[in-house]
Amino acid sequence: MEKIEEHRCFGGLQQRWRHSSTALDCMMTFSIYLPPAHEENAPPVLWWFSGLTCNDENFAAKSGAQRLASELGIALVMPDTSPRGEAVADDNAWDLGQGAGFYLNATRQPWAAHYRMYDYLRDELPTLVARHFPVGAKNALCGHSMGGHGALLMALKNPGRYCSASAFAPIVNPSQTPWGEKAFSAYLGADKASWHAWDSCELLLRAPDSAKLPMLIDQGDADAFLAVQLQPARFAEAARSRDWPLELRIQHGYDHSYYFIASFIEDHLRFHAGYLFN
Amino acid sequence: MEKIEEHRCFGGLQQRWRHSSTALDCMMTFSIYLPPAHEENAPPVLWWFSGLTCNDENFAAKSGAQRLASELGIALVMPDTSPRGEAVADDNAWDLGQGAGFYLNATRQPWAAHYRMYDYLRDELPTLVARHFPVGAKNALCGHSMGGHGALLMALKNPGRYCSASAFAPIVNPSQTPWGEKAFSAYLGADKASWHAWDSCELLLRAPDSAKLPMLIDQGDADAFLAVQLQPARFAEAARSRDWPLELRIQHGYDHSYYFIASFIEDHLRFHAGYLFN
Repeated sequence: MEKIEEHRCFGGLQQRWRHSSTALDCMMTFSIYLPPAHEENAPPVLWWFSGLTCNDENFAAKSGAQRLASELGIALVMPDTSPRGEAVADDNAWDLGQGAGFYLNATRQPWAAHYRMYDYLRDELPTLVARHFPVGAKNALCGHSMGGHGALLMALKNPGRYCSASAFAPIVNPSQTPWGEKAFSAYLGADKASWHAWDSCELLLRAPDSAKLPMLIDQGDADAFLAVQLQPARFAEAARSRDWPLELRIQHGYDHSYYFIASFIEDHLRFHAGYLFN
Repeated sequence: MEKIEEHRCFGGLQQRWRHSSTALDCMMTFSIYLPPAHEENAPPVLWWFSGLTCNDENFAAKSGAQRLASELGIALVMPDTSPRGEAVADDNAWDLGQGAGFYLNATRQPWAAHYRMYDYLRDELPTLVARHFPVGAKNALCGHSMGGHGALLMALKNPGRYCSASAFAPIVNPSQTPWGEKAFSAYLGADKASWHAWDSCELLLRAPDSAKLPMLIDQGDADAFLAVQLQPARFAEAARSRDWPLELRIQHGYDHSYYFIASFIEDHLRFHAGYLFN
């Protein structure tokens, strides 16, 4: 573990760390925000999963989330979106390969050798964070677009592990929308039955009642990806059929950018605080 | 005037515009944030001047200022930091030429042909903004580093025009610090007497009492540029000698980055609101 950057921010510390990942078999960088001390309590962790083309820095620099994380006493962990490096398979397209790991474990070559973001984010990085930083035991998830997909699937596949999950403009049904179809074909192969394990709509329909946790989704209605790639109404419909505690908010005039995320990140932090400190 | 980008942000609009500048003799891009309507009043304008290597987007994306601008009803105008384009003189160094206009009117070639950021920001862009956007008549200034220098000199050279001025880690004495000496030598030539017209310490010492306006400066004490390039104590000392209404705040542990700006931008917006709405 090597600290490669540190900035004082809203009374806490914004840091970047590099480490060798076993799950991904490459060097990885993540960002973390440690809020100032709140009494004697170690802060719970909100995991932020970013979207296509992003790394660990986009949310750190553009969301303004540290203001609320400082006020509420929540640590933010911001991983990268894929394995990285010259030895790691890649593609010229921006929606496949490095920067586009889709938060799954790939089973097809050349991807299977490194693309195991699910294992990395479920097991390896939480263990590392718990060992090296003064954080508490409670966790919540939030993400954007491809990272919203990651946050929802991580919550749905691991009942009891997260207090709450939220997303901005998430990909909720990747097995039936173009970004997901392209990525899943490459990472998982042609057998669509294997895709369902990584599709939030499918996961929610099959989850046990014990997996229910509070969820919040914000979606801008001026988002150019809404109609074809995102379609959060599909997830809301699945949730309604299961009586699942999901709130889907349609935000008028907002697009897919970080200006949208910055505008509503406070609501998401306060939403998670309601469960992380319960 | 061509609108090249627009995003809903905190209920208002974040836009980028391109136009042909007469003062700079090139195409220029600026960003503007228009807050949601507050009763019937047109919002006053806070001008943000960015630092070395920045363009109009850094503050827009990283400061989080729109949250407060929305709440208070203040428009933000974020110009570029120099003339731009293939026909515009440049230098391989990051602290000279494009991205490093130093908010002055150059008198030496090859710079004098385009580098007239002072005229552009004092006359041309305010006229353009007043004509095309629903903004009020009151103005204030804020900037970072080289842009802090720009904000302070603009206020000091134009008594009565701005309600207030503030800065993060400004260059206050460029005629006697390395970044300024390099830039002024190139843009203004070797005669140091000509430099004083663009040096905030010199300007403050010579300003009429009628030029006094409220000023706020934040400076991080972990800023790597503090001791050699910035030295805000020189400006504070000049202000003290003139009984000038300046507050200089030293912020412990903060560096020169946008994480520092984001942490204190709310204070600056509220500081300016106290005068813009007076």
